[in-house]
Amino acid sequence: MSAQDRPSGYRGYHQVREAREDTELTHVGHGTPCGEYMRRYWQPVALSQELGELPLLVRILGETLVLFRDRSARVGLLHRHCAHRGSSLEYGIVAERGIVCCYHGWHYDVDGTLIRAGSEPPDSPIYHKVVQGAYPVHEHDGIVFAYLGPAGEKPPFPVYDTERRRDARKRAFSITTPCNWLQVYENTQDPIHVLHLHARSSGVQFGAASGVDQVIEYEESPLGMINIQTRHIGRHVWTRTTESILPNANQTGAIWEEAERTTFFQRCAILRWMVPVDDTTTRTIGWRFFGDRLDPRGQDNPCAVGKESIDFIGQTEGERSYEERQRRPGDYEAQVSQRPIAVHALEHRASSDAGVARLRRLLRKRIRQLAAGESVPRPEDFGLGAVPTYTQDTVCEWRGSGDPDEAALRRQGRRVAEAVLQSDRLVPDAREARVRALCEDGAR
Amino acid sequence: MSAQDRPSGYRGYHQVREAREDTELTHVGHGTPCGEYMRRYWQPVALSQELGELPLLVRILGETLVLFRDRSARVGLLHRHCAHRGSSLEYGIVAERGIVCCYHGWHYDVDGTLIRAGSEPPDSPIYHKVVQGAYPVHEHDGIVFAYLGPAGEKPPFPVYDTERRRDARKRAFSITTPCNWLQVYENTQDPIHVLHLHARSSGVQFGAASGVDQVIEYEESPLGMINIQTRHIGRHVWTRTTESILPNANQTGAIWEEAERTTFFQRCAILRWMVPVDDTTTRTIGWRFFGDRLDPRGQDNPCAVGKESIDFIGQTEGERSYEERQRRPGDYEAQVSQRPIAVHALEHRASSDAGVARLRRLLRKRIRQLAAGESVPRPEDFGLGAVPTYTQDTVCEWRGSGDPDEAALRRQGRRVAEAVLQSDRLVPDAREARVRALCEDGAR
Amino acid sequence: MSAQDRPSGYRGYHQVREAREDTELTHVGHGTPCGEYMRRYWQPVALSQELGELPLLVRILGETLVLFRDRSARVGLLHRHCAHRGSSLEYGIVAERGIVCCYHGWHYDVDGTLIRAGSEPPDSPIYHKVVQGAYPVHEHDGIVFAYLGPAGEKPPFPVYDTERRRDARKRAFSITTPCNWLQVYENTQDPIHVLHLHARSSGVQFGAASGVDQVIEYEESPLGMINIQTRHIGRHVWTRTTESILPNANQTGAIWEEAERTTFFQRCAILRWMVPVDDTTTRTIGWRFFGDRLDPRGQDNPCAVGKESIDFIGQTEGERSYEERQRRPGDYEAQVSQRPIAVHALEHRASSDAGVARLRRLLRKRIRQLAAGESVPRPEDFGLGAVPTYTQDTVCEWRGSGDPDEAALRRQGRRVAEAVLQSDRLVPDAREARVRALCEDGAR
Repeated sequence: MSAQDRPSGYRGYHQVREAREDTELTHVGHGTPCGEYMRRYWQPVALSQELGELPLLVRILGETLVLFRDRSARVGLLHRHCAHRGSSLEYGIVAERGIVCCYHGWHYDVDGTLIRAGSEPPDSPIYHKVVQGAYPVHEHDGIVFAYLGPAGEKPPFPVYDTERRRDARKRAFSITTPCNWLQVYENTQDPIHVLHLHARSSGVQFGAASGVDQVIEYEESPLGMINIQTRHIGRHVWTRTTESILPNANQTGAIWEEAERTTFFQRCAILRWMVPVDDTTTRTIGWRFFGDRLDPRGQDNPCAVGKESIDFIGQTEGERSYEERQRRPGDYEAQVSQRPIAVHALEHRASSDAGVARLRRLLRKRIRQLAAGESVPRPEDFGLGAVPTYTQDTVCEWRGSGDPDEAALRRQGRRVAEAVLQSDRLVPDAREARVRALCEDGAR
Repeated sequence: MSAQDRPSGYRGYHQVREAREDTELTHVGHGTPCGEYMRRYWQPVALSQELGELPLLVRILGETLVLFRDRSARVGLLHRHCAHRGSSLEYGIVAERGIVCCYHGWHYDVDGTLIRAGSEPPDSPIYHKVVQGAYPVHEHDGIVFAYLGPAGEKPPFPVYDTERRRDARKRAFSITTPCNWLQVYENTQDPIHVLHLHARSSGVQFGAASGVDQVIEYEESPLGMINIQTRHIGRHVWTRTTESILPNANQTGAIWEEAERTTFFQRCAILRWMVPVDDTTTRTIGWRFFGDRLDPRGQDNPCAVGKESIDFIGQTEGERSYEERQRRPGDYEAQVSQRPIAVHALEHRASSDAGVARLRRLLRKRIRQLAAGESVPRPEDFGLGAVPTYTQDTVCEWRGSGDPDEAALRRQGRRVAEAVLQSDRLVPDAREARVRALCEDGAR
Repeated sequence: MSAQDRPSGYRGYHQVREAREDTELTHVGHGTPCGEYMRRYWQPVALSQELGELPLLVRILGETLVLFRDRSARVGLLHRHCAHRGSSLEYGIVAERGIVCCYHGWHYDVDGTLIRAGSEPPDSPIYHKVVQGAYPVHEHDGIVFAYLGPAGEKPPFPVYDTERRRDARKRAFSITTPCNWLQVYENTQDPIHVLHLHARSSGVQFGAASGVDQVIEYEESPLGMINIQTRHIGRHVWTRTTESILPNANQTGAIWEEAERTTFFQRCAILRWMVPVDDTTTRTIGWRFFGDRLDPRGQDNPCAVGKESIDFIGQTEGERSYEERQRRPGDYEAQVSQRPIAVHALEHRASSDAGVARLRRLLRKRIRQLAAGESVPRPEDFGLGAVPTYTQDTVCEWRGSGDPDEAALRRQGRRVAEAVLQSDRLVPDAREARVRALCEDGAR
């Protein structure tokens, strides 16, 4: 295109525009479409390490709540303000069973039951009327999850197949980001940013191989969607599938992958939930997985993984000076600066935004299903004892003559993804074997 | 009641409710019903010790004002913004008479009269038009009071009988609390919280005797209302009357009382006003009283009493860490965490909230009287030279056989309160004698 | 006037009034009447010294923008949020030509042209649709100026005659003030405040001569308006003309002038723009001029002049403690405390506010002209190579018998101003000669 065909420059005055955020996908309060959708799934609310002997104030989906472990080791998640006169249960006294409001001694069990209303007589009618708002919780491998939806619609707590690996250990972490959840979440269906933000803009921030140009496809999965990234690296073809487990979980492959040796159906390095704290704050909570297979060069740093800390760059504001963040921006700078809530109506999306667009469509579809009274899919384990997922890396040798062209990479990516998607009723070893067989059979 | 009769648990999702505060009792701006009611009484605005040679910015009832002492030692309280062009008189230059705006030299007297309009000629018509907004002030024993109501309705400045005691000395103090005034004020008609918050929740924070269970009654008084708390402690029966002097003053008995020796009509340890700074901030200003009779074990600490400081626990945020405040919450934690303005519509009040409910009804009645054009009662001294009040502690020996039952304690409390209420035209010594006689006569 | 004719005092309750600011003169956002007016002129946006190798976030007229110097040394001023997905270009990577968004590599030239849309193919239709909002900039003697108005209406960049003096050197500075621009600007057409604020209220803050009472006149000028201040100092008569170059520039004479020796058509010590950052913040950016003629006693301090710093008192909050600022308030205290946006409807203006009133009328007239579709005047150089201005100080000997009366001072002021206004098609030396001749001829 010649310069003449382009719009003229210096149009700042004429381009000042205002538009509202897409509330259907971004607002998460009680009663909002997306907030209701989020409330149909188990969500992480805190790390176990945060929960000591004192109550902990937590904030999720626009609600401020009090989380505590009683002296019988049962965990409760209650509405912040005591049903009696409204004092905060963060100042409650943890009891053998439940918690006692400091002000007048109203005593609640972990499910909100009013055990004793302070100085009220035991036969007071108050016991028939009052129950403190409470949510079910489930503590699992260092993370406290809660279900904030309608009492009758609580799904079973899902454990994912990637958690059951014998060759990797987990470490829980959290990262808080001051922007809307969708900006953080959709970044994982935007593989092109890896090339720009994490390689060209800022120097290589992850494995050098991730900076190599790629062929990208997208597919739906039973849990949401995957993107399929295929790259040619030296003698190898590397196919990564990155996964969105709706509404707000993600699995991502080895962050330091260099595609230097063959590997098949190698599972994720991260399982995380981008949890809306409120409309303009997100707390990502999840696990980093560590194991030799995921980290051949020994770049992982488990000691840096924990509360508000992770072992890769660019995830928080405080870790670096403003100047450093300007010189080598990371996900934090790119996402947070999209505004507190990014305004989709002001965007100019192009072909490389296909994954983001698809994820938004899928979320919108589910949100509208729920609003229309239909059920929304929840993770299922098909009797396998864990919910099968679709995240993996496969690196195989390229046996064709010359370098693979784009069509060849696209073919290989699709074949790997198809094998991964179609093997989900098999045990993990069988799935890995199927992908290996496919590669040994076809990559030539 | 069996567990089956109770509401089911885990109802958090179904109990998310929004409601507005009770604006009639909580909003205090100019023109609001409660704000107008407050403006019919003298209110403390600052401690004398705060008023040096420079003007002082003060905030009360939602208005920001400038308080100063001129070079003739007269105190002025003016609207913040100069009537001329709006510069703040906090930057005014204090003069022999009044204050001069820094910007163009407009000179105002303590009553707001425009003495000189800067460079305007002395015969300018501006002098006929302009008077700076000003309020009458009265300085009394270390506290500066102001009257912020209509010019023609200013009541006489009241001095209370408890201030005239020979056996106690006063020390002025202030405490700022970031919540609505009513939360701080109604706490004094909520005697049950003493048992829970100040004894069971946090360990004993005041005299140990205050943690003993009590029989409670409420009565109206000419100044507002009292509560009557009667406890059996060892060989003694202790009856305390705690008083609300409407609209927003309180008198409370000895904070370290242990009921170890008899005493009759012993007067208060605190006289204070819970002054609304604005709708969500309260500044309590008043006097602590010190004397041997009030403090037999020597626990008072006058040195800790002053600007934003008091000699008992749990009144401010800064005095302790968040962890300490969680471990042993005090009034500050219980009150402030009720929300910036507590929402009565979300409460579940029970029998032990009778005093709070009664105080709110009484305030609402007075507020509506004023709004309807009726007059509201103001403190009167009945020609005694001081306004009689109804706060006292009486401890007498229990001479009955066995321990007193609840009915006996209730009877004794009522008799003491009746004597206190009916003796208000007598001099204090005569009132004390009457209570003593009653006890020596009846407590058997 | 006797005290009896004055309004009565203690009227605070009756004078609580609310009123809105004059939005027509004070609001500056895109599409507001005053904002549009401001956008028809070149405005300073930053000091050159602020612009290093990293992008700089600047805020002006309610817009947050990204200013940068590319690796070819061209300066760009772009809308903050990338047209693609909204990430801030403050994290953009500065390129040989223009800047690259960190997130997906969209590359913009300094005029906003989309050079490359990251991974999009070169023939993508996106290039026909997208141009990043951009504004023309002009860097001049240490200050970066921008034109934020409609693309077709950009005026030539004006250089003023006072910048071309051989006997003074310039130093750029900036000062940020947290209040509306008009408060800062109209202060320069309010000569009476100099007497009060800068001499009587706070002690002498500028030259002692500025504290002497003065005769004041106002005149329109081709660029806006001037005020004419004439004082009798010892054997001399001193006539200062202070100038408003609309919409928001000002020139002011020597700040330490003492009128101790004759001088004719001596030019300004400051040329500055009171730039609205937004409705409640102003950034004054301009030059201090230094030279022997302007500073006979050597009181200037060029080292103190720069970013957020100036060599005279009372312009910032941080330079002094609150107590010092109360004891000797300066422009900052007087202006900022007029409220975030001063409320004209609450003012009581008098004869000494004539300059302020006139400036507001003139601004309103121009704002309404523009809103009505008429053109507004812009600075012209009449072929002289620089725009003639009307700021000067003239000190001549008083040769009359006795001291000059007010009428004589008024006559002298008018004659000087007339000569200054009528000589604007002449070169500066000729204008100076004309004023000198006038004084030598007439001042007797």
